[in-house]
Amino acid sequence: MSNFVVAGNPKSTSMYKCWLKYYKLENKKLSGEYKNLLKSIVIKENTAITQSAVNELKRGLAGILGIRPEISEEPAKPAFLMLGTLSGNKSIAGLLGREKQNLGEEGFIIKLLTENEQKQLLVAGKTDRGLLYGVFSLLRLIQTGTGLDGLPRIENPVNQLRMVNHWDNMDRSIERGYAGKSIFYKNNKITGNLARISDYARMLASVGINAIAINNVNVHKFETLLITDRYIKDAAKLNEIFRSYGIKLFLSINFASPLSTGELFTADPLDKEVRKWWKNRAEFIYAYMPDFGGFLVKADSEGRPGPFTYGRTHADGANMLAEALKPHGGLVIWRCFVYNCLQDWRDRTIDRAKAAYDHFMPLDGAFAENVLLQIKNGPMDFQVREPVSPLIGGLEKTNQVLELQTTQEYTGQQKHLCYLVPMWKEVLDFDTCAKGRGTSVKKIISREVFKNKYGGFATVTNIGDDTNWTGHQMAQANTFGYARLAWDPELTSEEIAESWIRLTYSNDRILVDTIKDMLLGSWRTYENYTSPLGIGWMVNPNHHYGPNVDGYEYDKWGTYHRADHKGIGVDRNVRNGTGYAGQYHKEVARLYENVETCPEELLLFFHYIPYDYRLKSGETLIQYIYNTHFEGVEQAEELKRKWESLKDKVEEDVFGHVMERLEGQITHSKEWRDIINTYFFRKTGIPDELGRKIY
Amino acid sequence: MSNFVVAGNPKSTSMYKCWLKYYKLENKKLSGEYKNLLKSIVIKENTAITQSAVNELKRGLAGILGIRPEISEEPAKPAFLMLGTLSGNKSIAGLLGREKQNLGEEGFIIKLLTENEQKQLLVAGKTDRGLLYGVFSLLRLIQTGTGLDGLPRIENPVNQLRMVNHWDNMDRSIERGYAGKSIFYKNNKITGNLARISDYARMLASVGINAIAINNVNVHKFETLLITDRYIKDAAKLNEIFRSYGIKLFLSINFASPLSTGELFTADPLDKEVRKWWKNRAEFIYAYMPDFGGFLVKADSEGRPGPFTYGRTHADGANMLAEALKPHGGLVIWRCFVYNCLQDWRDRTIDRAKAAYDHFMPLDGAFAENVLLQIKNGPMDFQVREPVSPLIGGLEKTNQVLELQTTQEYTGQQKHLCYLVPMWKEVLDFDTCAKGRGTSVKKIISREVFKNKYGGFATVTNIGDDTNWTGHQMAQANTFGYARLAWDPELTSEEIAESWIRLTYSNDRILVDTIKDMLLGSWRTYENYTSPLGIGWMVNPNHHYGPNVDGYEYDKWGTYHRADHKGIGVDRNVRNGTGYAGQYHKEVARLYENVETCPEELLLFFHYIPYDYRLKSGETLIQYIYNTHFEGVEQAEELKRKWESLKDKVEEDVFGHVMERLEGQITHSKEWRDIINTYFFRKTGIPDELGRKIY
Repeated sequence: MSNFVVAGNPKSTSMYKCWLKYYKLENKKLSGEYKNLLKSIVIKENTAITQSAVNELKRGLAGILGIRPEISEEPAKPAFLMLGTLSGNKSIAGLLGREKQNLGEEGFIIKLLTENEQKQLLVAGKTDRGLLYGVFSLLRLIQTGTGLDGLPRIENPVNQLRMVNHWDNMDRSIERGYAGKSIFYKNNKITGNLARISDYARMLASVGINAIAINNVNVHKFETLLITDRYIKDAAKLNEIFRSYGIKLFLSINFASPLSTGELFTADPLDKEVRKWWKNRAEFIYAYMPDFGGFLVKADSEGRPGPFTYGRTHADGANMLAEALKPHGGLVIWRCFVYNCLQDWRDRTIDRAKAAYDHFMPLDGAFAENVLLQIKNGPMDFQVREPVSPLIGGLEKTNQVLELQTTQEYTGQQKHLCYLVPMWKEVLDFDTCAKGRGTSVKKIISREVFKNKYGGFATVTNIGDDTNWTGHQMAQANTFGYARLAWDPELTSEEIAESWIRLTYSNDRILVDTIKDMLLGSWRTYENYTSPLGIGWMVNPNHHYGPNVDGYEYDKWGTYHRADHKGIGVDRNVRNGTGYAGQYHKEVARLYENVETCPEELLLFFHYIPYDYRLKSGETLIQYIYNTHFEGVEQAEELKRKWESLKDKVEEDVFGHVMERLEGQITHSKEWRDIINTYFFRKTGIPDELGRKIY
Repeated sequence: MSNFVVAGNPKSTSMYKCWLKYYKLENKKLSGEYKNLLKSIVIKENTAITQSAVNELKRGLAGILGIRPEISEEPAKPAFLMLGTLSGNKSIAGLLGREKQNLGEEGFIIKLLTENEQKQLLVAGKTDRGLLYGVFSLLRLIQTGTGLDGLPRIENPVNQLRMVNHWDNMDRSIERGYAGKSIFYKNNKITGNLARISDYARMLASVGINAIAINNVNVHKFETLLITDRYIKDAAKLNEIFRSYGIKLFLSINFASPLSTGELFTADPLDKEVRKWWKNRAEFIYAYMPDFGGFLVKADSEGRPGPFTYGRTHADGANMLAEALKPHGGLVIWRCFVYNCLQDWRDRTIDRAKAAYDHFMPLDGAFAENVLLQIKNGPMDFQVREPVSPLIGGLEKTNQVLELQTTQEYTGQQKHLCYLVPMWKEVLDFDTCAKGRGTSVKKIISREVFKNKYGGFATVTNIGDDTNWTGHQMAQANTFGYARLAWDPELTSEEIAESWIRLTYSNDRILVDTIKDMLLGSWRTYENYTSPLGIGWMVNPNHHYGPNVDGYEYDKWGTYHRADHKGIGVDRNVRNGTGYAGQYHKEVARLYENVETCPEELLLFFHYIPYDYRLKSGETLIQYIYNTHFEGVEQAEELKRKWESLKDKVEEDVFGHVMERLEGQITHSKEWRDIINTYFFRKTGIPDELGRKIY
């Protein structure tokens, strides 16, 4: 396989602080205004979370404004910052008008009050979690050089659960990790650097993350024991850290735990002893972590155990766990990534894309109240381009979590720049037509449409123990962007990018615009030089890095492009294909089924298309493949030129690090271009109209 | 990647004894004759090796004839077996006539003398090693039911060095091992089961092996220390075992040892300190093993260190080691597997096939007297079909060792039946035309042609700690066959197969003929359903098992088929190709360069051929590909039918074991057939003339 070593030292420490860099604000006027307003901080409450908020304020204001405000219970003259919660400080209600009715459980308000020439900046939440989010929001306002004109600002998170999933193993490895080793484990022990984990919790809370699953959904031998004596005390230590930042701790569990621990001879979810086992287990866990979040479960998927072993349904399995957690307020998050991973490539009647819907739609309404189904955004597996899973918009009576992937498994593995927010925005804005036009994914996930009890966002995180957390420093924009979208899916890709750039680098207008350009085009650039028009999977098996057109073509994974010398693509029509398109509501199905109306970026996902087919641009399919692949490399080269232009505006080690990654990306994008183009040229014999070099 | 689990328990103990099974001879007449002759054994010498010989005789005669002969120094009446050596027992010379001049250093004679009605069967060698080989030969004669009519039998091994190379690592893994873990190591220690290793030494000696390298040519961290205090005493223990069976122990060494051990700052072969380091090291080793064989070296190959680092040649490197070993009589075996493993697949001017010749031909004559170059049989890497390396027949003034591969890396990994002797025979019989017609490979290796001081055979062994040693029981035939060929390359594939079958199973005529059929056709069967006409490499990268047509096509390893929609193959002509064919002597070069005269089984190795090209059979190339792939599967199915017919003639566990392997082979051969055929059908659009199923 191709091994392209991409350098660029991710151990350089200046990138460690991410978007909480708190560098000195250069705008002197604004800086002066804020300094005057923030010399004194008043807070009358004292919880772990309010302490986190105050500490963050001190840290932030020291860095950005160079001040060390007094903390007291009494207002100072002529100005002060007031922090408080509706639930913990009665006077706060008085300072708010009808605004307080608009504050949700995790909401906050930032408001400027002036009375008797005394200026009071109020940051308040309904709860201490809201207050913490308010403080982080205020620090962002200041750092990005935003004035006070926009106040009052009231924000409530749109989504209830805003979660990150770690695929960390206790041997310190991370499945699909591209930023070093786990920050939590080593040698099958929880031996994380607690100071670093606390920094991580700050980082998550700063952008509104409120839940974390700390171990891989593929639960191996030692990880199975996280819910036992062996590890529970150490897990509780992590829980304490996350608790102080308003983050609930979840554990991925092994469905076969009663068996694997050697305590029972079955894991049948309808077996009385098994149910009792899990109830006892839940009581045990909650004794150590009274605010434990619950279980994340991958069952009957890719070789993991599950209820199928006992002839039971996913609902039987999930509900059994739900029953055990319910008395404690815990949740079961049950993944829908279930498919036949032993498919015969010769068999065209099976379609992996249909699997999640086929498995879970019949169970809609059968799950307990505290079960959430976690659904990957697409029907396959985090490809660079996929349609939206038809389960979203299909399920009505089921709590749903949208699963995104921040770790760049199929999108460049943090060696390539690929800002994923525009992709996620397309997913969120996709109209499922579940209740007629306008039933977008984001409205379903936010529970606006079906009013489910629970819902939210989860992502497979891109975090590891590289000093810069994410391997490629710019991949921090995805960590940040995911969380911001989970908080408010109406934010635009541009807004999120701009905010991340200002917090991470500087408020320099040229720098902001240049990096924004780089980020916003990067997904399309990556798509251009990799697999075309939604067909996906042209990667090396197992590690999924680098081009291999037939890498998954003759394999058992259900991932085929079916290219021959005349055309390429998979017919997924109801009439003459696999029937996948029929899983959508009829307005959507009609769109996809018709070659003319099918969005071209998904053309090969839904149809087998001859190479001489003319796209709307007038190009033939084959010429489109050639063009995009040449273009993609040019765009990668353009990324480097843009970055070069910022040499004097970026810290030297950051500049060098990103530059080396970008150079690696150029080299590797050529490998993609040449292998894909050569593959299709050799297969079709059709030359490039522009006579460019194909091998 | 495709994972075909092939069952068939290689732990079953009845296969442990291999061809030294010593089962009861059913032929009563012959059995009686032998019994009468062998009641008493006379031997007047006592060395570790003569003890091995006597012990083997006792073991063998007890099993085959059910007798326990007396051992004494005095002849018995009326018949006895006389064992002795020319060097150790003066009376032996008297019993031999002019025959003694025909006995080489390792030769033996088996002769029947009758005097005064006293029958004396004489087994004698010039040395105790020769005697040991004579004893094993006698036991084979008896076990296979051969009478005494063929006596006297004088044999001398045709090749001097008859070696096995273990690619065993000290962590117990075996590179390219398909029969379990190492028999020598565990947890980075030499902790082999000494009784088993002794059995292994017997097994090797029984077929004339006289040298062994016990560690992988890729010498890692711990293995580097085999020549140090840390391990030398344990290595000496193994040496003692092998010594008692006439086998010289070699170690693979790390060229950078002076550096890697932390003792020097360079490994430059022309550096005085480095030369001194190796001299001291050699003295150290010989203090523990006075008969140590020497070093096996993989240098400047696939990332291994070597003289290139210091701007020195392979001759500089090898001669430096040779100088250190010379005072002790040690040899340096230097591998020629040197090529650029970072090739750009786009670059058609480089040809890996040329590498060994390009590197080593200019050094012909530059190597010290005790250096041997070890040359793989083909220019690439043990593919199912390759031409012979042009280095053999090229080099004249250099000691040469032919390297074969018994472990079935590219030939079915001991999951598929593939009897390799016919392939090796083709290599040995190949006419290099080095000194005009008739200069076959075997004559060069045996030193007949160039009269080099040293020469011989080496093989990468297929032995592991599976109870049956080789994973697939029938792969024992390759272990056996390699050794027999090394002893005498004139033996035919049929003779070797017949002998192995009789020793391993029984003398039943139907059984012998059926298994012989199975063995003799198996290489061609495997070739039929895998990559066609010498092009090779259509395997999954890294592990090399299972079909993947483009698996190595866009990679850095120099292994390309260059298939497009019109044709496939690599032009290796001098005029319009890579020039590889020009490395042969002109008669051979002319043959390969011309499409008309190029042997068809190597057609795609030497030429790019259009799919509609007509082969001598009248089939087009594409139809030939389809036909052979359908045929290969049918032949695999035929193997099973043949084996089934032997159900009552084979032990039950052996029958079941082989049957399961054969069934796995059928399943996997279909995977090969379908993927290869589908690949070419999709690429060409040319249908099978017989309308068979292609996907």
